[in-house]
Amino acid sequence: MQEQVRVVVDAMGGDNAPAEIVKGAVEAVNSRPDIKVIFTGRKEDIERELQKYTWPRDQVEIVHTSEVIETAEPPVNAIRKKKDSSIVVGMGLVKKGEADAFVSSGSTGAILVGGQVLVGRIKGVERPPLAPLIPTKTGVSLLVDCGANVDARPGHLLQFARMGSIYMESVVGVKNPRVGIVNIGAEEEKGNALVKETFPLLKECKDINFIGSVEAREIPQGVCDVIVCEAFVGNVILKLYEGTGSVFMSMIKKGLMSSLRSKVGALLIKPALKQTLKSFDASEYGGAPLLGLNGLVVKSHGSSTAKEIKNSVIQCVSFKQERINEKIRERITEQND
Amino acid sequence: MQEQVRVVVDAMGGDNAPAEIVKGAVEAVNSRPDIKVIFTGRKEDIERELQKYTWPRDQVEIVHTSEVIETAEPPVNAIRKKKDSSIVVGMGLVKKGEADAFVSSGSTGAILVGGQVLVGRIKGVERPPLAPLIPTKTGVSLLVDCGANVDARPGHLLQFARMGSIYMESVVGVKNPRVGIVNIGAEEEKGNALVKETFPLLKECKDINFIGSVEAREIPQGVCDVIVCEAFVGNVILKLYEGTGSVFMSMIKKGLMSSLRSKVGALLIKPALKQTLKSFDASEYGGAPLLGLNGLVVKSHGSSTAKEIKNSVIQCVSFKQERINEKIRERITEQND
Repeated sequence: MQEQVRVVVDAMGGDNAPAEIVKGAVEAVNSRPDIKVIFTGRKEDIERELQKYTWPRDQVEIVHTSEVIETAEPPVNAIRKKKDSSIVVGMGLVKKGEADAFVSSGSTGAILVGGQVLVGRIKGVERPPLAPLIPTKTGVSLLVDCGANVDARPGHLLQFARMGSIYMESVVGVKNPRVGIVNIGAEEEKGNALVKETFPLLKECKDINFIGSVEAREIPQGVCDVIVCEAFVGNVILKLYEGTGSVFMSMIKKGLMSSLRSKVGALLIKPALKQTLKSFDASEYGGAPLLGLNGLVVKSHGSSTAKEIKNSVIQCVSFKQERINEKIRERITEQND
Repeated sequence: MQEQVRVVVDAMGGDNAPAEIVKGAVEAVNSRPDIKVIFTGRKEDIERELQKYTWPRDQVEIVHTSEVIETAEPPVNAIRKKKDSSIVVGMGLVKKGEADAFVSSGSTGAILVGGQVLVGRIKGVERPPLAPLIPTKTGVSLLVDCGANVDARPGHLLQFARMGSIYMESVVGVKNPRVGIVNIGAEEEKGNALVKETFPLLKECKDINFIGSVEAREIPQGVCDVIVCEAFVGNVILKLYEGTGSVFMSMIKKGLMSSLRSKVGALLIKPALKQTLKSFDASEYGGAPLLGLNGLVVKSHGSSTAKEIKNSVIQCVSFKQERINEKIRERITEQND
């Protein structure tokens, strides 16, 4: 039997905790025998939710924790003080090697801080970036960094490009992934100071398939597989992606309800539209891994439903089986030698 | 009779020059008696296009220029060397007071450089920002700066907020416009170094209706009237806005063509969808003004059609009649005293 991948799931994090979190994690273990879920959180809350489902006993465990880190709490303080929170205890299990991965929809700040402080960085990795997959016209692209390291330096972006390439190649299965840097024009002399300094360095890297600048307009087209940028810019891209999509949809829906004719039409197009939207639904792709840690930390969306949690848990299996962290360690060590 | 607003239109700039440019400008003079258009560009090309239409003789003039600045040319060099280009001559007319405004769909770089070097800044304005109106769910917001000043400093962003407020109040007619700063979280302590430094300064400005941080996700909702950000971020926002919209539409169209049922539905919803899309069409709002110059410079989209050019020209009338530059001069001088 294949070795089980042990995934800690933070049952207390996110807008829909614990109900959707527990549901999604149960769906994950029911779909694959090679996953073991370890919930951290208030035992009675988790058990109450678990009662609604059936699942293989040996694939689910609960580690009771009494505290919860709220989204609004200053992250550094929260991580330091709430020793018995679902996040701190869960990351501790990864740190001690008692689990392979940690999935949470809780406070992004606390997860970023905890990942660095509790789980720790792979030797040589300077800044672990948050790297979600975003849907495009032709598939998915990895956006790295989308929120972990504001005001990053060129060397950090190079590491983002490397780690992102490994992820896209090994987890998503894209051969020789194309790496682009977010810029405000196609030419090498365009950009802000950070991009101008990083561009020639990326060009020199023989182990990176660098295709040059990518304008934000081209991102939804799927022009590259790994989109490298500083975290502030990446966060703006990720959130605007979500924001325009949802406003666009609500406006179209409103438009469709404006006349009897369009209402009839709306009924007819519903199945086709649903299919189209599914391919543009980020929750299909699970959460965002924090790359470059001694273990895997996955941040799923604060508003995650069971589907995203399920996909986030399953994502941890490929990450472990494809030995992503070993590959990152090798590649970063090579470069630093 | 009301005084005419004299608008120089660069007949050579943009993907659709000169045909769409001339067409749009003629539509503008035909729609209002208070506009005079002065074309700069190759006389024979402009005359050939003009022959297709009728228009009041005293509202159109041609100033022949022999050179054209291409989009790919390094801007500083182009402005310096091509003295007889449609951009340099056109901006010169504004500088000399022989025209009130200059509209071009040509090289953004050349227009930004030319605006500063040839037309010149209003005394006290440090960096003139490019400020397009972007469509939102509830109307429009002004995005300032969307590409003129990468790596700006906090003091620049304060001026963007002031000039943007004047524009929204006087040209768009929004009373006491709400100003937000683009950030990656709602709390004051979030953000990169620039935002953290700018936030408290904006809060202190009594003449700015500052509502705090705005996340990119909220921008399409129309949560504020003036969106302040550094140019790299603003450019990413503007282009991603365009990019997601167009990919989304092409995917929906493709989805609608996928079955007979959805094809019939598509026919029925077409009018309603068209109306919805119109309200989200940036070209309805003309081009982007470069704020804070001694005269008005408007950059319209490189792919502008006649409609955007017409709207860009008409936009110059409100700008002049509402005495935007006088208001900017007064407000900036007050602050610097």
